[in-house]
Amino acid sequence: MKTVKNSKLKIQDSRSPSAYTLLTPGPTPVPQEFLNKMAEPVLHHRTPEFGRILNSVFENLRYVFQTETAEAFVLSGSGTAALETAIVNFFSAGERVLICSIGAFGERWSAMAKAHGLNADVLKFEQGQAVDPQKVKEYLGSHPDVRGVFVTHTETSTGTTNPIPTIGEILKTKDVLYLVDAVSSLAGEEFRQDAWGIDVAASASQKGLMCPPGLAFISVGPRALERMKTAKLPRFYFDLSFYRESKKVPETPFTPPVSLLAGLALALESVKRETLETYWARYKKLAQHTRSAVKETLGCSLLSARPANVLTAFYGPSESEAKKIPTTTVLKKLRDDYKITIADGQGHLKGKILRIAHMGAITKEDIDRGIAALVEAYASYGVSCRSLSFKI
Amino acid sequence: MKTVKNSKLKIQDSRSPSAYTLLTPGPTPVPQEFLNKMAEPVLHHRTPEFGRILNSVFENLRYVFQTETAEAFVLSGSGTAALETAIVNFFSAGERVLICSIGAFGERWSAMAKAHGLNADVLKFEQGQAVDPQKVKEYLGSHPDVRGVFVTHTETSTGTTNPIPTIGEILKTKDVLYLVDAVSSLAGEEFRQDAWGIDVAASASQKGLMCPPGLAFISVGPRALERMKTAKLPRFYFDLSFYRESKKVPETPFTPPVSLLAGLALALESVKRETLETYWARYKKLAQHTRSAVKETLGCSLLSARPANVLTAFYGPSESEAKKIPTTTVLKKLRDDYKITIADGQGHLKGKILRIAHMGAITKEDIDRGIAALVEAYASYGVSCRSLSFKI
Repeated sequence: MKTVKNSKLKIQDSRSPSAYTLLTPGPTPVPQEFLNKMAEPVLHHRTPEFGRILNSVFENLRYVFQTETAEAFVLSGSGTAALETAIVNFFSAGERVLICSIGAFGERWSAMAKAHGLNADVLKFEQGQAVDPQKVKEYLGSHPDVRGVFVTHTETSTGTTNPIPTIGEILKTKDVLYLVDAVSSLAGEEFRQDAWGIDVAASASQKGLMCPPGLAFISVGPRALERMKTAKLPRFYFDLSFYRESKKVPETPFTPPVSLLAGLALALESVKRETLETYWARYKKLAQHTRSAVKETLGCSLLSARPANVLTAFYGPSESEAKKIPTTTVLKKLRDDYKITIADGQGHLKGKILRIAHMGAITKEDIDRGIAALVEAYASYGVSCRSLSFKI
Repeated sequence: MKTVKNSKLKIQDSRSPSAYTLLTPGPTPVPQEFLNKMAEPVLHHRTPEFGRILNSVFENLRYVFQTETAEAFVLSGSGTAALETAIVNFFSAGERVLICSIGAFGERWSAMAKAHGLNADVLKFEQGQAVDPQKVKEYLGSHPDVRGVFVTHTETSTGTTNPIPTIGEILKTKDVLYLVDAVSSLAGEEFRQDAWGIDVAASASQKGLMCPPGLAFISVGPRALERMKTAKLPRFYFDLSFYRESKKVPETPFTPPVSLLAGLALALESVKRETLETYWARYKKLAQHTRSAVKETLGCSLLSARPANVLTAFYGPSESEAKKIPTTTVLKKLRDDYKITIADGQGHLKGKILRIAHMGAITKEDIDRGIAALVEAYASYGVSCRSLSFKI
């Protein structure tokens, strides 16, 4: 097996021993120092002490989104809450939007846009394929009334990265908002809100930022801030105008998850200190390592034609398919016998694929343990993988 | 000063030393054992281990809501998220509802109902007054098309408890949903969802349940579960039908705040073990003690004509008013010099009143320290309170 030198980040040294090794795309393992921060006595949310935490979070979020022109907001919720916030603040019922869908999270955005009465067209691409920017260009040409284009940066259900900057180029000269789901990519895959012309970017705490789930982020550029003023979709808890007003204090309009925010503040400082470029390079290497291991050690095929740096999705060994052993069975064995959690496929891919995340505080050693355990687990079902050179 | 024997709960012994004594109505102090639980390595949310936590939370929430017929749900968010969930799942645009408002949280529910296009009538009562059930009866008589009645159990902005069971009696025979904001009352003030005919009750983690903010709860009775099927207000993240479906696994539809939920599970077990009756009795005594101290030691008047057991709201000493010293000034001094956080008034009451919470893990000793510090702080501004017998 090809081995790739892994740039070990300082933060990994502080990880606590866990009952389970999480190789899942959120929640990802959380460094013990962040967990300890969250276990400190809770602060009241309308005090100068907490205001300082909020300010540092707002400022450092702009760094991880790579923006100097956008405003960052934090809400209580998962990535889905961030995606819904990106819909209800910028559109009015009946407006036409385009959802580019390459998997489960594109589908989710589409379901949300429809639930809110938008006239949502869906450009759907085949499983494992990325968005074809040419198709977006053609669509825009024939639909001059479109008000927003939604694209997932890294689609976690198939492990695919979309060509965000190329689509941004197409949208740059048009009065169309560009909204990007950066839930699983932020701080994992190169992402540049300003340079790529992104109006609205949404993300969450439990992926690349190495925190527990519970916090949703949204970064809103000047064009979108302007659009907010006329957007009429009903909203209250997700209404960013309240959050914008409260930021001046600095506060949040509704009681925020203070302990999670204290942890997040530390996490963001870590990322800033080590620099995003270090993080991006690290996951790029981890992704190359994982893809090699999947192909050369497990003898499996990747699902994606344009694989992401934050997650590798792959089919089970062909022998396991012949023997009708669903991935669900093997993954249960991995959890029970090895205390390793690897993600199954979602929706119609459940039981058919495996997904190993390499984001946040996941290390090369974690991944190697996961691969080695898979080799053993498949062997116990009489399925031999290409190589047994891995040791747990 | 009259002293009242305080029934000390076991949970209080485990509280960690905090930089600040929180006498605020959420966040309230969190026992260290719950914080430690939250600092354990995060669990993946789609595993049997986490499913067991979820099941225990669902079951014990039904105990604290005192219901055998309703289904309990947990969402990521503050109390306001729970209140919005209570609107969007059970109504359709244009439907008539009645909001009974006795302060800031009644106003909030009203603002939300209007944001969602409901035809919301507001029965507003004077500051410090509770809802007059007779007025509700009269309103219902003249508005047969009303589809829901919203009432705040304990209004935190004025420290007032509404006559929830009496209003429940009036609504019992009508096809009108009864929705109660139990955000600040749950596990603090006697609350009985089934016995009082409540269809929907909403609450949050950072009050009586002694957890950090970030979790919203909603308990939905059979009539409301039925109404959900035809309610058309747009919703997605707050759509309880997704949560209901996922509960069968048991899971949540979107990644939940796993660490907060692990802490909540412990907190709910504690409440169940010590029984709700113990909790209710404790805060009743703490409330009597606080009201006595406010009147007899500070020489201040209560704001509320029907004071709550979870929070005491009171005006500053009359001398402070004569000397034009806003409560905001004194409360800042309390924070800076004594590390004690007491809440100011909200909205137009800011600078005019003080609010001492007695909910969650707040102890008689905390309250006595707060009162003694107030006496000293006011003295430093040349305002003498009735008694200086308190020592910090």
